[in-house]
Amino acid sequence: MDNDFTQKLDRLREQINKRIEFYACEKNLNSMAEPVRYILLNKGKRLRPILTLLSAEVFGFNTKKTIDVALAFEILHNFTLVHDDIMDNDDFRRGKETVHKKWNVSVAILTGDALLGLAYKALTFAPSKKLSFLVELMNQTNLDLCDGQNLDKDFEKRKDVTTADYVKMISLKTAKLLSVCAKTGAFVSNASEREVQILENFGNELGLGFQIQDDLFDIVTEQNILGKDIGSDLAEGKKTFAYLHAVETLPKEKLNRFFTLTGKGTISKTELEEAKKILYENGTIQICEKEMNFHFSNAEKCLFELKDKNTKNLHNFLNLVVTRKF
Amino acid sequence: MDNDFTQKLDRLREQINKRIEFYACEKNLNSMAEPVRYILLNKGKRLRPILTLLSAEVFGFNTKKTIDVALAFEILHNFTLVHDDIMDNDDFRRGKETVHKKWNVSVAILTGDALLGLAYKALTFAPSKKLSFLVELMNQTNLDLCDGQNLDKDFEKRKDVTTADYVKMISLKTAKLLSVCAKTGAFVSNASEREVQILENFGNELGLGFQIQDDLFDIVTEQNILGKDIGSDLAEGKKTFAYLHAVETLPKEKLNRFFTLTGKGTISKTELEEAKKILYENGTIQICEKEMNFHFSNAEKCLFELKDKNTKNLHNFLNLVVTRKF
Repeated sequence: MDNDFTQKLDRLREQINKRIEFYACEKNLNSMAEPVRYILLNKGKRLRPILTLLSAEVFGFNTKKTIDVALAFEILHNFTLVHDDIMDNDDFRRGKETVHKKWNVSVAILTGDALLGLAYKALTFAPSKKLSFLVELMNQTNLDLCDGQNLDKDFEKRKDVTTADYVKMISLKTAKLLSVCAKTGAFVSNASEREVQILENFGNELGLGFQIQDDLFDIVTEQNILGKDIGSDLAEGKKTFAYLHAVETLPKEKLNRFFTLTGKGTISKTELEEAKKILYENGTIQICEKEMNFHFSNAEKCLFELKDKNTKNLHNFLNLVVTRKF
Repeated sequence: MDNDFTQKLDRLREQINKRIEFYACEKNLNSMAEPVRYILLNKGKRLRPILTLLSAEVFGFNTKKTIDVALAFEILHNFTLVHDDIMDNDDFRRGKETVHKKWNVSVAILTGDALLGLAYKALTFAPSKKLSFLVELMNQTNLDLCDGQNLDKDFEKRKDVTTADYVKMISLKTAKLLSVCAKTGAFVSNASEREVQILENFGNELGLGFQIQDDLFDIVTEQNILGKDIGSDLAEGKKTFAYLHAVETLPKEKLNRFFTLTGKGTISKTELEEAKKILYENGTIQICEKEMNFHFSNAEKCLFELKDKNTKNLHNFLNLVVTRKF
């Protein structure tokens, strides 16, 4: 990766981490201060606010002018993580205990609620003429995220989920949020309606590719890179694109074997290797990669539509995502 | 009660119930639509939005101009009920199953999240110059409600809670919300800073009286009026003003007896009568009534400060609360 871009990312991340302290130190948090800080002051990759800031730069707006709107959607993202972890009964996130594990479910519900309020607060730093649009955009995003998570939970119980259902679900979750992050950067920077739409499409395609890639990591990454147990989605029979493609296309005997290997809660190294072999031989992994690359390539096409603008850093950002290893 | 005022209340309630359908039918709710409608289209008393509308009327603003802001805080109220019911593990509310009981905890968390977003959406109908203030006010209110609920849950585990702690907690929950409802009505209607402050104080005193009254109903009301089991707070050993006053002031032997009668999860009719007798003989009930009346009288004093305004309907509203039987 471009050395200048790496330095730029570090600089942006530093600015993001500095400004987010303002929200983490909100005076009225009182008894909620500790869990809210625990979440907001994590050292995450901050991909979402970076995307907003880079999108704004394309239209000449600097970090100072756009950082609060960028943080609004980063805080929204963190809110969903806290509540989703309760629903998914996950004990760890980024190697740290989740809020409901470290405290309890009540504290985790309230922490999420407090974060959602803070996300809206961050919008109030936008120019007042734009505030109404942004509040409504945040509301629509929140509703889509709720709808997506509700579908996701529903998938766990349903036996008739298709790859199309899966794409719809990740459109509402991962892709929606990245799409809004890119769009917002353009919107606050007075980009034209067409340009705002292009950035929205860019974020959407990036998000679809990103989620399929994330799910693939669970199957194909080397254990020591991922920082979590490889194959955990397969162990749980999680309905990812790969899993659903396998269900839709594997011949009966292979499918039965696949079902025997997966969804038991745990998966041995040998079982994982066998499941992977089935997925490769069926062409499932290749289809997933093709689907992922299709979306990444669509994302790139969006950037080419902005030919009169300097989109170098957004290309770099896309490349960063495409080449990530975890 | 004034017959004209009764008719006015019915009219306002009708307008509130009509307009709330707009939020309940938000198109992006999708899979969340059913539980959100289940909550928003309940036939509650709508005291909070009525308070906002009546406060606005004092400064010459009609229902049409203020109904969305009034609904914003009614939706916020409903959001807290859904999440609080999960934390309190309550199966019924207003005689209907709670969302987490009728669906499940995940759906209830998401329903609350969706409602909180809709509350902010309702603010966007306010004049754009006022929006930033209202969004920040909603954020502060939400944080106080979270803090209050967190303290409330904490009280369940603590043995050192005082009546002063209790008043602080209800200031953050019930009183904060009623205070903001009254304040907002004045604020959107261009009342002066002093008038906005007076309405805020009015709502706060009203809310403190309201909550102490609510807790007293659990002890002193006739069973058939309340629509729920009388004495259920005592059965659970809930740390209300009365309970805490008893703990702070009962002589040791009486206190031991009081502890034997309460906090077991159930309470028989005889036990309840005995507990009530202890509370009356100790002067606890009388102190609670005094405390309640002190706040109601403070609320009335606030209205007298607005002597150049027509506050007749706010007096009627206060009287409605003071004389309610459940």
